[in-house]
Amino acid sequence: MSRGPDRVSVDAMDDADPLRSMRDRFSLPEGIIYLDGNSLGPASRSVFRELELAAKQEWGEGLIRSWNAAGWFDLPVELGDRIGRLIGAAPGQTVVCDTTSINIYKALHAAMGLRPGRSTIVAENDSFPTDLYMAEGVISTLPGTRLLLEGVDAPTIEELIDEGVGVVLINHVNYRSGRLCDMAALTRKAHDAGALVVWDLCHSAGALPVDLDGADVDFAVGCTYKYLNGGPGAPAFIYIAERHQADARQPLSGWWGHARPFAFEPRFDAGVGIRKFQCGTQPILSLRALKAALDIWEEVDMEEVREKSIKLTDLFIRLVEARCGSFGFSLESPREGAERGSQVSFAHDHAYQIMQALIARGVIGDFRAPSTLRFGFTPLYLRYRDVLHAVEVLEEVLRTEAWKEERFTIRAAVT
Amino acid sequence: MSRGPDRVSVDAMDDADPLRSMRDRFSLPEGIIYLDGNSLGPASRSVFRELELAAKQEWGEGLIRSWNAAGWFDLPVELGDRIGRLIGAAPGQTVVCDTTSINIYKALHAAMGLRPGRSTIVAENDSFPTDLYMAEGVISTLPGTRLLLEGVDAPTIEELIDEGVGVVLINHVNYRSGRLCDMAALTRKAHDAGALVVWDLCHSAGALPVDLDGADVDFAVGCTYKYLNGGPGAPAFIYIAERHQADARQPLSGWWGHARPFAFEPRFDAGVGIRKFQCGTQPILSLRALKAALDIWEEVDMEEVREKSIKLTDLFIRLVEARCGSFGFSLESPREGAERGSQVSFAHDHAYQIMQALIARGVIGDFRAPSTLRFGFTPLYLRYRDVLHAVEVLEEVLRTEAWKEERFTIRAAVT
Repeated sequence: MSRGPDRVSVDAMDDADPLRSMRDRFSLPEGIIYLDGNSLGPASRSVFRELELAAKQEWGEGLIRSWNAAGWFDLPVELGDRIGRLIGAAPGQTVVCDTTSINIYKALHAAMGLRPGRSTIVAENDSFPTDLYMAEGVISTLPGTRLLLEGVDAPTIEELIDEGVGVVLINHVNYRSGRLCDMAALTRKAHDAGALVVWDLCHSAGALPVDLDGADVDFAVGCTYKYLNGGPGAPAFIYIAERHQADARQPLSGWWGHARPFAFEPRFDAGVGIRKFQCGTQPILSLRALKAALDIWEEVDMEEVREKSIKLTDLFIRLVEARCGSFGFSLESPREGAERGSQVSFAHDHAYQIMQALIARGVIGDFRAPSTLRFGFTPLYLRYRDVLHAVEVLEEVLRTEAWKEERFTIRAAVT
Repeated sequence: MSRGPDRVSVDAMDDADPLRSMRDRFSLPEGIIYLDGNSLGPASRSVFRELELAAKQEWGEGLIRSWNAAGWFDLPVELGDRIGRLIGAAPGQTVVCDTTSINIYKALHAAMGLRPGRSTIVAENDSFPTDLYMAEGVISTLPGTRLLLEGVDAPTIEELIDEGVGVVLINHVNYRSGRLCDMAALTRKAHDAGALVVWDLCHSAGALPVDLDGADVDFAVGCTYKYLNGGPGAPAFIYIAERHQADARQPLSGWWGHARPFAFEPRFDAGVGIRKFQCGTQPILSLRALKAALDIWEEVDMEEVREKSIKLTDLFIRLVEARCGSFGFSLESPREGAERGSQVSFAHDHAYQIMQALIARGVIGDFRAPSTLRFGFTPLYLRYRDVLHAVEVLEEVLRTEAWKEERFTIRAAVT
């Protein structure tokens, strides 16, 4: 049986990679193959000096004056537009602020407010859970509304979309399986029933081409610390289509969303456009790290990212199945590249221990309960040879049964 | 007429200052007298190396592993307890997360939920505005509730507190005048009527002794970037008295508030204690800067801070009135030290231009529309000689009419 591509052929793929120079832009620890950039992206080399500039010069020397002089106050909108270019959003529709969870709350409230008389929010039971938790929160503040779930109330989300549905909340790429949802088709289906859509781009922004404007999307949210490499817990983003901005209302009406925040008026008067989806003062140091990370994206062709992403994930699947296929793995991600994001998941009965053994050997992916090994593939800094090496380590862990060591037995995991 | 204390006497005050060594812990620009630490505190010297450690080692080298290995995931609770020590809160009642605005939303929702059948939120018309904006947002999600304001619906907040009131939302120190509210008395008054209180500590945490547990407070919120020096837009905190934690519910039910966030369950199950008031992933780099800032507070006696604060503000009032009294200033802050926080405000018809002229000469305070010059006094790094020097500069600006220069004419202010 074939063992799949060898070192010579993956080296040839690296040599032909149009993105190969991008790896030098990142600070990557020695001896690590990082297959978890879909959970926390690495630091770009420029981020350290940007942070030092922000801390020593802007904060330390500029003090309060930097809110204007260093452009701090406009960072959420400036960075929002820069992310907009990566997700197919024309300027003025995206702002960076708060967390994905908070932004889901804003988007769901606004969307339900735009569809009075409709009482249902539809989502996926295998959604990233915080989306559902926030939907529960929204429903607790909108008497008479309810949440229906694909996988519980019907087998497919399409079957749940009818004239009673106000909003469909859906993940563009499933966090566990990597399944990619057809954004244009599902948005059209929702619109045909008179509903709006809120897309969660956490696992697609920076991973593949996204075309929010082209797909006629209403709202979207996403995080910036995965594929966008913004840093641990960097603020999230929210997109609201220009056509909804005038009428959209959301209850997290803080002073950064006011039309005149520094007039200190006692009554709220929502700001114009995307600004009214801001709420409170944002963490500037974290935003400055994100700003440095986004510089790299200015030079990247997202179609090239997508092409390499599919090649990397195809290679990984092929190698795992060729070399480790007899050890009880089953592919949880779509086999067809066009149907998945930039990650590959395999199920295994001892997924937790195997991942711990991999991490101990410098191959970092993650475990998702109960039985998923999840590997993220990030074309800006991963090489084809890294994929081969990761599979070689996996094969060694399985052949030697290294994962059975005492130190890898299951305990509370926070990864 | 006396010109107030001279250089010899203020130097003697500095020599006798028990906090004088703390100034060396901060990075302060040359030639600046910073009277705006009540808006954005300066950087402590240790913050730069902490940020570098967080970025290069924890993020750059540790990558995803740092969520556990560097204690990132527990930072909100760890830092919450450290702030708790400064505001009279026993451990387990304070968590650092999100923004003051977001935390007001959580606190008001939780408090109203604990007082079913009561339909009124009471607040102050001259509250920091975002508190009112968030109250408006809460009311928009709780049909049948209303907001009544001191200064609009009655002359005093006490007159508004009756059996229909669920929550009183009040600022401990008024952001404009610096007036200090009697926390214990107002909390008792609210409790006597069966209402709960939410205290906004933005202008008191780190400025004076606060005793939340001793005053039997229910909820409190505050920011960390003013007197606590956590850095621009550093995450805020929220306090919930232990007795309310089991029953309190809030709709921003994100995954960081779940009892088992990494079990990825589809239904929300609130975590135990203060953790359930968290929502989404927090900005770690900004939290790490705050952590460094809080180290300094471990060495500080808040009673000494308060004593010096009153001396600094008394000195400022005395000097301004003695030297600049003929130029049309009127004191907007309480004259009695015990009745104000750590700031002094004066009204003047040309407040904006005068403040611009002061800033151009290195004396940084701020302007609040329409006519307030606001000066913050932060005992950890301000000297009595700085107060004298600031007033000397003010006197020069007034005597020479320097504020009439073209460059200081009013324009849109973002300070």
